[in-house]
Formats: sequence, C-alpha cells, structure tokens
Amino acid sequence: MDRSDPEGAIAAAAQRCSNWGRWGDDDVRGTLNHLDDDARVRAAASVVDGRSFSLSLRFETDGPQKGWRRRFNPVHTMTDTGTDAEAGVQGFPHGIGGADDVIAMPLQCATQWDGLGHIFDRGRAWNGRRAGQVVTAAGDQVTGIETVADGFAGRGVLLDVGRHLGAGLGTPGELPDGFAVTADHLEATASAQGVTVQRGDVLVVRTGQLTRARRSTAAGTGWGDYAGGPAPGLSFTTADWLHGSEIAAVATDTWGFEVRPNEFDDAFQPLHQIAIPRIGLFLGEMWDPDALAEHCARTGRWSFLLVAAPLPVTGAVGSPVNPIAIT
Amino acid sequence: MDRSDPEGAIAAAAQRCSNWGRWGDDDVRGTLNHLDDDARVRAAASVVDGRSFSLSLRFETDGPQKGWRRRFNPVHTMTDTGTDAEAGVQGFPHGIGGADDVIAMPLQCATQWDGLGHIFDRGRAWNGRRAGQVVTAAGDQVTGIETVADGFAGRGVLLDVGRHLGAGLGTPGELPDGFAVTADHLEATASAQGVTVQRGDVLVVRTGQLTRARRSTAAGTGWGDYAGGPAPGLSFTTADWLHGSEIAAVATDTWGFEVRPNEFDDAFQPLHQIAIPRIGLFLGEMWDPDALAEHCARTGRWSFLLVAAPLPVTGAVGSPVNPIAIT
Amino acid sequence: MDRSDPEGAIAAAAQRCSNWGRWGDDDVRGTLNHLDDDARVRAAASVVDGRSFSLSLRFETDGPQKGWRRRFNPVHTMTDTGTDAEAGVQGFPHGIGGADDVIAMPLQCATQWDGLGHIFDRGRAWNGRRAGQVVTAAGDQVTGIETVADGFAGRGVLLDVGRHLGAGLGTPGELPDGFAVTADHLEATASAQGVTVQRGDVLVVRTGQLTRARRSTAAGTGWGDYAGGPAPGLSFTTADWLHGSEIAAVATDTWGFEVRPNEFDDAFQPLHQIAIPRIGLFLGEMWDPDALAEHCARTGRWSFLLVAAPLPVTGAVGSPVNPIAIT
Amino acid sequence: MDRSDPEGAIAAAAQRCSNWGRWGDDDVRGTLNHLDDDARVRAAASVVDGRSFSLSLRFETDGPQKGWRRRFNPVHTMTDTGTDAEAGVQGFPHGIGGADDVIAMPLQCATQWDGLGHIFDRGRAWNGRRAGQVVTAAGDQVTGIETVADGFAGRGVLLDVGRHLGAGLGTPGELPDGFAVTADHLEATASAQGVTVQRGDVLVVRTGQLTRARRSTAAGTGWGDYAGGPAPGLSFTTADWLHGSEIAAVATDTWGFEVRPNEFDDAFQPLHQIAIPRIGLFLGEMWDPDALAEHCARTGRWSFLLVAAPLPVTGAVGSPVNPIAIT
Repeated sequence: MDRSDPEGAIAAAAQRCSNWGRWGDDDVRGTLNHLDDDARVRAAASVVDGRSFSLSLRFETDGPQKGWRRRFNPVHTMTDTGTDAEAGVQGFPHGIGGADDVIAMPLQCATQWDGLGHIFDRGRAWNGRRAGQVVTAAGDQVTGIETVADGFAGRGVLLDVGRHLGAGLGTPGELPDGFAVTADHLEATASAQGVTVQRGDVLVVRTGQLTRARRSTAAGTGWGDYAGGPAPGLSFTTADWLHGSEIAAVATDTWGFEVRPNEFDDAFQPLHQIAIPRIGLFLGEMWDPDALAEHCARTGRWSFLLVAAPLPVTGAVGSPVNPIAIT
Repeated sequence: MDRSDPEGAIAAAAQRCSNWGRWGDDDVRGTLNHLDDDARVRAAASVVDGRSFSLSLRFETDGPQKGWRRRFNPVHTMTDTGTDAEAGVQGFPHGIGGADDVIAMPLQCATQWDGLGHIFDRGRAWNGRRAGQVVTAAGDQVTGIETVADGFAGRGVLLDVGRHLGAGLGTPGELPDGFAVTADHLEATASAQGVTVQRGDVLVVRTGQLTRARRSTAAGTGWGDYAGGPAPGLSFTTADWLHGSEIAAVATDTWGFEVRPNEFDDAFQPLHQIAIPRIGLFLGEMWDPDALAEHCARTGRWSFLLVAAPLPVTGAVGSPVNPIAIT
Repeated sequence: MDRSDPEGAIAAAAQRCSNWGRWGDDDVRGTLNHLDDDARVRAAASVVDGRSFSLSLRFETDGPQKGWRRRFNPVHTMTDTGTDAEAGVQGFPHGIGGADDVIAMPLQCATQWDGLGHIFDRGRAWNGRRAGQVVTAAGDQVTGIETVADGFAGRGVLLDVGRHLGAGLGTPGELPDGFAVTADHLEATASAQGVTVQRGDVLVVRTGQLTRARRSTAAGTGWGDYAGGPAPGLSFTTADWLHGSEIAAVATDTWGFEVRPNEFDDAFQPLHQIAIPRIGLFLGEMWDPDALAEHCARTGRWSFLLVAAPLPVTGAVGSPVNPIAIT
Repeated sequence: MDRSDPEGAIAAAAQRCSNWGRWGDDDVRGTLNHLDDDARVRAAASVVDGRSFSLSLRFETDGPQKGWRRRFNPVHTMTDTGTDAEAGVQGFPHGIGGADDVIAMPLQCATQWDGLGHIFDRGRAWNGRRAGQVVTAAGDQVTGIETVADGFAGRGVLLDVGRHLGAGLGTPGELPDGFAVTADHLEATASAQGVTVQRGDVLVVRTGQLTRARRSTAAGTGWGDYAGGPAPGLSFTTADWLHGSEIAAVATDTWGFEVRPNEFDDAFQPLHQIAIPRIGLFLGEMWDPDALAEHCARTGRWSFLLVAAPLPVTGAVGSPVNPIAIT
C-alpha cells in the first residue's frame, strides 16, 4: 500500500469492490440483500440459553462526543416531572401524575448505524447515484434509514480480536490504538474461536478500545479522545474481505470503525469511502460488546441472534440503535 | 363500574393489582421479571419462516403529534449534506464526502415504550417510591429506561381484536372509537386465533385504529385526532387481567393504550394509573401491527419472536422504539 | 405587470435595483450601510416621552408555525425547576435553589429578521456571491447574522397603512388579505401621518393582519393561516421604492412581508428575490406594531428610536428579535 | 464576614435587602420598577456620537459551555442551504432559492439575562412566592421573561473595575480570578471615571476576565474554566449597595456575576440568592463590554443608551440577549 496515494488506492478498491447495480437500479438495501429469511431462521436456531445482551452505550450528556463537526452528546430534558406531580401542579384528576421528556441528539452520537446516505465517493452515493440528488438539507430522499427499518435482524457473529491478539501485543484483551486489523487477523480470530463467518451475518468486531475508554471514564478522566482520536480498527485492506464475505453489516466498539490514524499520509476514513457507497455496507460504531464477549468466551459460542433495529427516522443517514443479542 | 367514582375504582384496583415489593425493594424491572431466559429460548423456537416485520411508525415531521403537553413531531435536520459534498465545500481529502444529521423529539412522539417513571398514582411511582424522589427535572433517577435496555426481547403474541370483533360491530377489521376492549374480548380473540397468552409474553393488541388513521393520512386529511382523541382501547376493567396474566408488557396501535373517552365521567387515563405504578407494567403505544397481522392471519400463527429495544437514554421515562417481530 | 412572466419581471427589477458592488466586494452589511452614526444621533433625538414598546410576539409552543418547510413553534423545556428546589433534590448548599431552561426553535419562527443569506436570486446571494459558496450545511460562511450584530439601531418610522386605508376598504384599521401595498400607498400614508421616510430609517409597515390573527387566537380558533396563507403585504412593484428610498431595513406585521397570494400566477415571494440578494435589504417579519401604533396615533409622532438587535448566532441566515421602540 | 456561616449571612442580608411587597403583591418587574420613562428620556439624551456597540458574545458551538448542569453550546443546523439552491433541489419557481435554520440552546448559554424565576431563596421566589408555584416543568408561570419584554431600555453605565484596579494588582486592565469587587471598588471606579450611578441605571461591570478568556481562545487553548471556574466578580458584601443604589439591573463580563470561589467555605453563588429573589434584581452574565470600554476610555464618557431586550420566551427564567449600547 502506497501511503502517499489514497486516491489511487481508493479508486482501485472502488472498482474491485463495487456492488453497484447488483440488486437493481432502485436498490436501497445494499448488503442487507445478503440477509434473507432463511438466514433468520438459522439465526433463531442459534439461540441456546436465552440470555439477552444490550450492546448499547447509554445515551446521555456524559457521552463521548467532543464537538467534531458539531456532534454533541444527547440533551435530555423533562416536560413533566415527579416533583411537579407531588407538588400538585399538573392539573390531572383522580391522583394521576405523569412525567414526560424530550431529547435532542445527533443520530450518530453514541451506539449507531451508518446508513447508506452517510458517505459519498467522489460525489456518488450508494448504487452510483449523485450525492446531491440523494441527500439534501431535507434529508436522504432515497436511502433514508427508514427504508431498512426491518432489515437488521439475523445472525450475529462476534470476532473478539482484542482478546485473540491483545496479549501478544502487550495489551491483554485489547488492541492498541493505531493497530490495523487485517483480513488475516479476522480469519485467525474466527478460526481460534471456532466460528465461520457466513453470508448474511452481522459481524461485530471487538477491539477492546471501549474497555479502555470505560476504565478512563470510571477513573474520572473522561472519554479522552475516544470520539475521533487514535484507535484500533479495520485496515483499509479489509475492503476486499468485507466485500467478498457477503456479510450484511459490520460493527465495532470504536468511534470510527477503521484504524486511526488512517493508513495514508493525508486521509480521512478511506475505508468508509469504499464500504458504504461502493459495497453498500452498513457500519455500526460505538457498539459495546464487552458483556457479550465475556459470555461468548465462557460458553465457547460466538454466534447468536442479533436484532439491531434503527429508529426509522425519515430521511436519516444514520440512527442510534440498541442492538440486542440473544445467545 | 361507577362512572362517577374514578377515585374509588382506582384505589380498589391499585390494592388488588399491586406488585409493590414482589421483586424486592430495589426493583426497577417490574413485569419484565416475568420474562426470563427460558421464555426467550421458547420465543426463538417460535420462529418458523424467518420473516422480519418492523412495527414502527416513521419518525418524521408529518407525524401524529398535535401539541398535547408540548409534544411535537420529530425535527430532523442535516449538519452535512450530499449537495455540500457535490459542491466541494466540506474540506475532506481524496474525494470522500459525508452527510450527518440531528434529531429533536419527545421520547413518546411516535412508536414508543412508557417507562416505569412515566406515570404516578397519588404521588407514588413504581414499587411505592415517592414520585418526587424518582423523577426530577434531571430525569428518572431510579427507573430510567436505560435500566431495562436488555429486557424487551421475548415471545410476542398478537391479539387482533379489530379483526375478530370489527365485522360484528359494522367496522370490518377495526374497532370503532370509544370501544372498550375487555378481558373477555381479549380471551375470545386469543381463543379464536388459537393462541394462549403465557407468562412473560409481550402482548400486542391490534384495534385497527391506526389502519383508519393511515387511510386518513393517505387521503391527505392528516392524522386527525389520532394523538389524544377518541379511540378504541383497553377497558379499565382489564387491570386485573393484565395483572393476573403475568405478561411482561403490552402494546397497542393507538396513542393512549386505553379506551378514550375514558370510562369515568371526569378522568384521564385511569388504567395507566394502575398499570404502570402499581403493576409495574410497560406499555407500548402507537405500534404498527398491520403488516404483521396480515401475515399472522395468513399463516395462522399469532406468536413470534419480538425484540423491542428501547433507546437507553439515561433517566428517560419512555423511549422511541422500532419493534421487530420475527415470525 | 405581466402575471404570467415572473422571470421577466424579476430579471428586470434585479437589474434596476441591484446594489451589488456598491459598498465593495467584501460587503456584508447591505442597506445597513445607509444607517450611520449621524442617523443614530438624530434617532436618539426623536425620543420625547421615553415610553418603551416591545414589537415582539411571544416565543412559545402556541405560536403561528404550521410546519412549512419544517418550521415549528419554539420548544421550551426546563432543566431545573422550582418544584425540584422545593423538593430539596437539587443538591445546592445554604438554601439556594435554581431553575434553568433550554429552547429549540427555527430562527424565523416568530418575530424575526431575514439575514442576507436567507434568499438567493438564480443561484446568487447578496453582492453577487454564489449561493453554494455562502450558505452550506455548516451555515452562512460570509453574511451570517453575527456580522451585523450592532447594526439594527437607528430611527424607526411606522407607516400604519392598515389604519390609513382600512376604513376605505371596508376593514377599518386593517388591510384585507391579498391587498398589495404599493409605493403610492406608502407615500400617501407617510404624508397623512406627517412623517418623511429618510435614508437609513428602519421602516415598519403595519397592515393590521396581526390584529386580525390576534382576534382569532383570542377567540380560541388559533392562528389560522397566518403563517404562510393569504395576507396583505408589499407589492412586487415596491422594489424600486425600497431601493430608491435608501432605507436600512423594513419590517411588517405579517408572516411574509409581501402580498400573498403573490402577484404572479406561479410564484413564490418574488419581492424577496429582489430585496434580499439584490438590494441587500434586511426584512423583518411577524413584528407586532399594534401598541406602538396606538401610541403614535395618539401622539401624532410616527418616528422613534428603534433597536432591533438580532441574536448573533454564528452563520445564521435569520434571527429572532425583540425590537424595542423608544418614543 | 464569617466564612463558615453562609446561612447566617444570607439570612441577615435577605432581611436587610428585601424588596418583597415594595411594588405590590402581583409585581413581576422587580428592580425594573426603578427604570421609568423619564430615565429613558435622560438616557436618550446621553447619546453624543451615535456609535453602536453590541455587547454580545457570538452564539455558537465553540462557546464557553462545559456541561455544567447540562448546559451546552448552541447547536445551529440548516434546514435549507445555498448548496441545495444551487443544486436546484428546492422546488421553488422563477429562480428563487432560500436558506433556513434552527437552533437549540440553553437560554443561559452565552450573553444572557437571569430572569426573576432563575434563583430561589430557601424555597421562595421573587416577592415571596413559593418556588414550586412559580416555576414548574411547564416553565415560569408568573415571572417568565416575557413579562418584562419591554423593560431593558435605559441608561447604561460602565464601571471598568478591571481598568481601574488591574494595574495595581499586577494584571493591567484585568482583575485576577478570585478577586472580590466590593462596593468601595465600585464607588472608587465610578469616581475615577467621573460618572455617578443613578436610580434606574443598568450597570455594566467590566472585570477583564473575558479579555483574558478571549486571549486563550485566540491562542487555540479554548475557553478553559470561563464557564464556572474561578473568576473575579462582585463580593457578597455588595448586596446592600446593589439594593440601596436602586439600579434596574447589573451585568458583568463573567460567567457568574459574583466572585468565584465564593466567599464562604461551602457555598454556591450566595449573592444570587439575595439579588434575584430578595432584591428582585436582574443579572446579566457573559456580556462583552471590551469594545465599548475602549470607546468610553477614549471619550471619557461612561454612560450611554442601553437596550438589552430579552427574547420573550413564554415562561423562560432567563434569556439570551444582544445588548446594544449607543454612545
């Protein structure tokens, strides 16, 4: 890989990995086309002990956002409260009282899906459409996240690369910041775990960076650079593997999915530029796989039923999500 | 039932149906305690054809809210757009462009869960706590929806009361506004459908009112009084059935779950006053079961795996939700 | 005027009325250049009785917005309350308690200024700049309202056209909806009032439509079509007068400043298309001049000191404002 | 002053300085009652050179807020843009294009007024009302800032304590953090400047801390602890002077008006607890007097016409403001 030529590498990968036209000119589902009803039947069959895990961060004012491109942490305010109810100022009959609330937040402020309208490659959105014809100030007119409201239910596979490689790197259970996870690393982890990634799977890659950030917040030193700073993550070179594996979606426990700093001298999230607009792949970010990973390690089972339903906000290019794994 | 005495009826039902203390003084899960891992294993086993259904409305500016207690429809704005990407004004390298967005909305503006801090009975919240000690202007300090982030995954059962009773009422497929669904109606529907409601189920009751509202919006006449006006819904008299059935949660396709106008002369949502703070029951509102109901009717199977994961907003008394049924 | 040719009329007026380049290539103040320190000294000298009038609507959930292009009424929520303070749950020492609040609103939801980045003429913003180079999703990069934070203080002149012409039109004190106010009407009103519009004045035109809307809200029938429906307002033909009079700004008591329906068969706010990007004129909308107009009529003085300071929101294309007239 | 007894000091000052009942039981204007029409006539007469100064910070995402009690910096998003207009996706006729925007912000995130409902003294709001009867989750039911929409226009007097005392303290032009400005300091500054504070004046006190913070932001090191950290400010002991001087309002260039750390061992803003609920005094915070101060120093004139109109948000306990001084 030539660190000085992101343009060349991106153009080549875009050519090799493109799914444009694969599912028709009108397609809005991208790689979710790999996830069919049969896959869901198999996913349900992977449920063994019935444990339920939420892979979501809490959405709150103390979240990881630091202001990058105006992203902020959720602002949650009350329009009715229990103190008001006790004070008898709500005006309801027969002793009923209520509390109600409002939220304002970026759709990608915490645990989230990147929708297909989130990233463009040289002015083109998923399936070759012009970016400016897809996403205007009025939102995503074509591939809004509401178009795939029912799509994110299938088999999940957790690849705990942090656990597999961390010890050998001197950071047990975690990958260091800047570590680029390659296709070989993914395959080796799967092999060590005894699991095979199949067409239509939703892949969850654990790097362990969130574990590290959680130690920092627990120690009172805050999230640090979790939102946008150096991080382990997928290498640009995984583009072909992501394309060829025919997975339905992929998520990590980091802010930005791919390794940071990026692997070119002057670059910003080059793997996104292939994955979303060219492969049509949905990316999950800031997922919390830690409790699930402990359970998988204990049971030796690394696949499960995964339902990660986005909020169907009309025209949204992403969505907060509370992914549920049932093991 | 004495229409002039909501206070008396509420006090009596509160006494009969209380689950306070049943799961310990510290409990925050209420009837989700009925939904255990074994139930989830059985739920997964109910998956037959692998179809996935979203039971969610779209979250958008054209939603049903009309301003009741300052509830408004979602406000979705873009912080980056495809038009900007095309215009080359984003400042990113190597041809990558992006779109990003923000939302502001009440947590109960569209398809939602009522959390346990949403309603109080004479100054008391779930499990007997003082309302003013639970929900302040800083949010729900005890039973915030984040405490049950992993809880809403289990077996769903759809009771299509609209389909079962509508024809006989002169409104095929739908119940008329103001129709009170009783325990007998629920049992008769279940019996006709050949399904048995079990402990730990998440019950979805279809009245058909949403079908009616959807016709109105399709005709360009808007949502009308869907958000707060007359509606079919559960009778106050179902409180004992809801308590005794040991269901984990219940949802309807209406704004307010219970019949409106309410069954007392001067009342506001009296069944909420029993269900949430006394039974500890989570209520789903504005769910869209229509496509699922068609499928159930066609297949004759009325139970399914249901995952209805709330957004874990810290301190929230409710949550938007995109419930996913896998049949 | 040819009702079928807005394009032709607009092109001609744009040519005749353009101030592009008049104040240099870098100009961001437009017609505020007409308002200098000397004018402010004269404005201060017009203060006679020291009465202070607010010309602002209240910013609240019961405001006039109806959803046009996602505009909504202000959403005001509390983050601390007096009920919380009384309940002793705020955690402050020595008996201090506090209340705090948050607002979300369109910048043009109630009484407002249109900034120079608000409207474009065939892809061009004020002073001939490309629209897409001026206002991106990141806001107005050139003429954001913050650049004129100190500009809106000078002499105000109220022309009460509703009072002057309403009686003759059968609507005493008010102009009927659809009535186009011409330059002759403005001149006649000024003459009748004994006031002369001078260079650098901020002109306030009262049509009386707000008085009518206020009767409607007082009667409980709401704002009706105030926000975007038929209205009296300035005729497209006033473009030359607005240009030639060298006023600093102009405001009305209507939603949209110009007459609605517009005076072309298929048109949307054609006078805006001249006034803002070509003349560089700031437009005030939804101002409430009623109490001031009563006072002016009583005293016979129609000029006053006017301070209408926008909120200096960086990159904003408009601003809410509470205009203060001191008579 | 006994640093260990804020309760005693506060109780005594509350007794000495109370204006409760002074303007009747229904009063909502507090010390604005001192500012009458005659004072405004005199204020207008103080205009000499017609210069206009905005004393407002910019409202933007890069503002000073750091998350204290969920306060955040303004979130400004676009709902229509110039790039969209250029791309021809807005759907308007005859070449008109538009930009529009939305803001979400705490009402006290930048330059602001504290309203009378902002602070309580041992459960009591201004004029002796119960806090919980005044400010509920629905807002301030009595003293909302909209009730004084027309009130903040009068004579402004700038006391540049930073300029007067800073050099002697080793910080030319600025007071060091933690410096408590006493009544003697205020009087000495006024005397040195040759200005007399009169009944009904709006007093602006410059400490110079904002100048310091601005150096920090210009150097790229951000606002630091400007929002809530150590600061120069008024001493608790000025309560009697603030009361006796019969000023209409007072503002500073700091986050919190009074000296921080506060002058008691365990305290939070004790002067607020007297000033707002007991004196009925409106407090301005985060005002930017620097350019005005330069002008005043140059001209030797320290009084001016000041219009600082709050946004009349119904039920608000504070308001953003763009104060305009005309000299």
